[in-house]
Amino acid sequence: MGKQFLEITEKEKVEKIIADFSVKLATQIAVEAEKVKIGEALGRIASADIFSLLSIPPFDRSTMDGYAVVASDTFYADENNPSALIIKGYIPAGEFPSQYVEKGYCMGISTGAPLPKGVNAVVKVENTSEYRDSVEGEREGGKIKKVKIYKPVAPAENIMLAGSDIKRGEQIVRNGTTLTPRETGVLAACGINEVSVRKKPIVAIISTGNEIIAPGEDLKPGKIYDVNAQALSDSVRESGCTPLFLGIASDNIEEMTGKIEETLKEGADVIIASGGTSAGVGDLLPKAIEEHGEIIVHGVDIKPGKPFIFGMLHEKPVFGLPGNPTSALITFNLFVAPLLRTISGIHLQNYEEGESRKTKRKKAKAGLRIFSERGRNEYVLVNLVPVKTPGEGEEPFLAYPILSGSGAITTLSKADGYIFMEKGKEIIEEGEMVEVELLASRF
Amino acid sequence: MGKQFLEITEKEKVEKIIADFSVKLATQIAVEAEKVKIGEALGRIASADIFSLLSIPPFDRSTMDGYAVVASDTFYADENNPSALIIKGYIPAGEFPSQYVEKGYCMGISTGAPLPKGVNAVVKVENTSEYRDSVEGEREGGKIKKVKIYKPVAPAENIMLAGSDIKRGEQIVRNGTTLTPRETGVLAACGINEVSVRKKPIVAIISTGNEIIAPGEDLKPGKIYDVNAQALSDSVRESGCTPLFLGIASDNIEEMTGKIEETLKEGADVIIASGGTSAGVGDLLPKAIEEHGEIIVHGVDIKPGKPFIFGMLHEKPVFGLPGNPTSALITFNLFVAPLLRTISGIHLQNYEEGESRKTKRKKAKAGLRIFSERGRNEYVLVNLVPVKTPGEGEEPFLAYPILSGSGAITTLSKADGYIFMEKGKEIIEEGEMVEVELLASRF
Repeated sequence: MGKQFLEITEKEKVEKIIADFSVKLATQIAVEAEKVKIGEALGRIASADIFSLLSIPPFDRSTMDGYAVVASDTFYADENNPSALIIKGYIPAGEFPSQYVEKGYCMGISTGAPLPKGVNAVVKVENTSEYRDSVEGEREGGKIKKVKIYKPVAPAENIMLAGSDIKRGEQIVRNGTTLTPRETGVLAACGINEVSVRKKPIVAIISTGNEIIAPGEDLKPGKIYDVNAQALSDSVRESGCTPLFLGIASDNIEEMTGKIEETLKEGADVIIASGGTSAGVGDLLPKAIEEHGEIIVHGVDIKPGKPFIFGMLHEKPVFGLPGNPTSALITFNLFVAPLLRTISGIHLQNYEEGESRKTKRKKAKAGLRIFSERGRNEYVLVNLVPVKTPGEGEEPFLAYPILSGSGAITTLSKADGYIFMEKGKEIIEEGEMVEVELLASRF
Repeated sequence: MGKQFLEITEKEKVEKIIADFSVKLATQIAVEAEKVKIGEALGRIASADIFSLLSIPPFDRSTMDGYAVVASDTFYADENNPSALIIKGYIPAGEFPSQYVEKGYCMGISTGAPLPKGVNAVVKVENTSEYRDSVEGEREGGKIKKVKIYKPVAPAENIMLAGSDIKRGEQIVRNGTTLTPRETGVLAACGINEVSVRKKPIVAIISTGNEIIAPGEDLKPGKIYDVNAQALSDSVRESGCTPLFLGIASDNIEEMTGKIEETLKEGADVIIASGGTSAGVGDLLPKAIEEHGEIIVHGVDIKPGKPFIFGMLHEKPVFGLPGNPTSALITFNLFVAPLLRTISGIHLQNYEEGESRKTKRKKAKAGLRIFSERGRNEYVLVNLVPVKTPGEGEEPFLAYPILSGSGAITTLSKADGYIFMEKGKEIIEEGEMVEVELLASRF
């Protein structure tokens, strides 16, 4: 248990190293695609441009219940002098008419039904009345069905032309688009029931520590339940990736190295280990990484989160987060989530520019004086309390720091976000405006 | 195909009828719970208050690597006159010490390890150095291990007391909370691996129309693919409910009545049918509802969406949406989504007051002059275009109306939201500020 020192890297430098690497990794992962049924496609990301193989609508369609006519037959119609047309029959939606309609004739038609040949407009049923014409009927040996048209229609009125919505060959979804109900609806319209989406990156999660046991097991003396496996798995899900929990490793180098080799066998794209990263007995992760890979960052100038590790192992990024759940969550949010969002592509769903890879922010007023440790970049977890009746232009939230021990788990569940106090900023006065970076699911 | 008139209800009245009913239905549904494994609990809603059966931490824990001491042994220590203590052994994390440590003695301890009896503080390893004392060693027949302490510690320093984070019996999750990684982490900390969550309401979906066929089938003449089954199923998912698609019903009363009876057998909490709601040949849904239930609203004073239906069938709400995909989506957003969010409980996850049951809004400037039909409440679908370099205080978005035929499917996928133009407001000038209600997944 000798003294060891971490070589501290600046936060901005760490962010840049990881961001540069994210882009490279995203390019590799973006090409890996899988097919899913359209019923399971919601929220997935299209892995290619999608084009329609059909025109929509596939035929000229009536947009009204009424009569399909030759428009010129109606041009001089009004309430007093209606046009009278002979009805050749009725076209319900879903049936394709075989008749040809010449001038002086028409066909009854339902909304959505295909137009017969010869017509070029539809008169709404409200502007018509049917009757039996016995005069004409006598000539033709009985009563015949006719309709009076009280209002003229222009050519193409109440018709949706074939292909006017989507043309065959038209691009309907762009590569990289997150599929919402609108996109899945358009795919359905084009008859597409399977879609190629980006593979969700697999993120292996390892918890380390002799004292850690899984929830559900018996709590023996000296042991505590593993918080990070659950909190990190769910954070990984929120970042658009699939977590793969590989269990708890004891503090010994063989077990740690074994777990890490397992992640590679399981096809993990990213590895996250938590615990065992401080400069004490638990300093095994760096050794395990160095056996087959390289440590790029070991220690960053922030509090909490100083013993953060970033390394590479067979070209896969490996993150070492502190065991303390709050520190693990903050370093996850700062350094891991941006990479996961980039490689999973979910940042593309924010159409607001510049928001893509960053966390969401909210302005608030400090509800109390907030102190930070001298000479440290510090993250202060806060909860946001809405002010009941905000005045004109007044900010609606107060930010209160969450005061608790460094290992506190309740800190986690109370926090809405955190305030960054840069080195040199040691006091935030009560009432001072602050920017709160929101934790992912508090958006 | 005679004329029929809808009895039009005002939009505000329809919203109120549905909101009142939502609350009643939510109360019934909130009591229905199911158990899920914690690994599947993300995003679900706790159906009861949850209390910890453990204290966290379960024992007094060191928060540092160092030495567990009697604090008074270190009070006068400094760099020149360190305290010297005999080391009785080492406590790794995960093991429970049996030793008693008296004054003059100490034990090496790892971060997270339980404190031995007798001590009341931990000295950080950085402020110590170990050595072998041969003088004392001679007396005791050899060299003994000791440690020099260079800095005093106060009682309780670097210790996390048992129960200081969570006390046994403390409430850790409130009934109605949406479970985020923070809540699942806290549950894990307390050893809880199964949690009781609200049942997701089941929403039956029926598409109607002789011309409608399912995506994946062959497109026969006169037929079109069903858009609404997919778009509504995914919208139901986004509203926190489980969709249950019951297939396409033709335009005949037996088939429609049969489908509706099926929804009840399948345990649906809500029924949504689309198509067949206008006052023409397709007017079957109202008849089918009236066979065993009651029509409450048939027609609302908005465009698009006028033929909207709301009814009750064996105490379940039934919605009839227009067949046109854009109208179906707008009426879903206006009238159905608020009910689904209320009964699924997902509105509770927005901590911002007042946002619960409403859609999200964004201010924008009209990018063009926008017209509305005289004497109608009209919804104009728009897309939002960010302005590249917004000046100080300038709004970053321009809203452009989406101009397209009323049956257009592409309208759906282009729209970010809609502007409401109330009766009497017929023109929005270019550059005028507008409020855009965002479509659900564009948040």
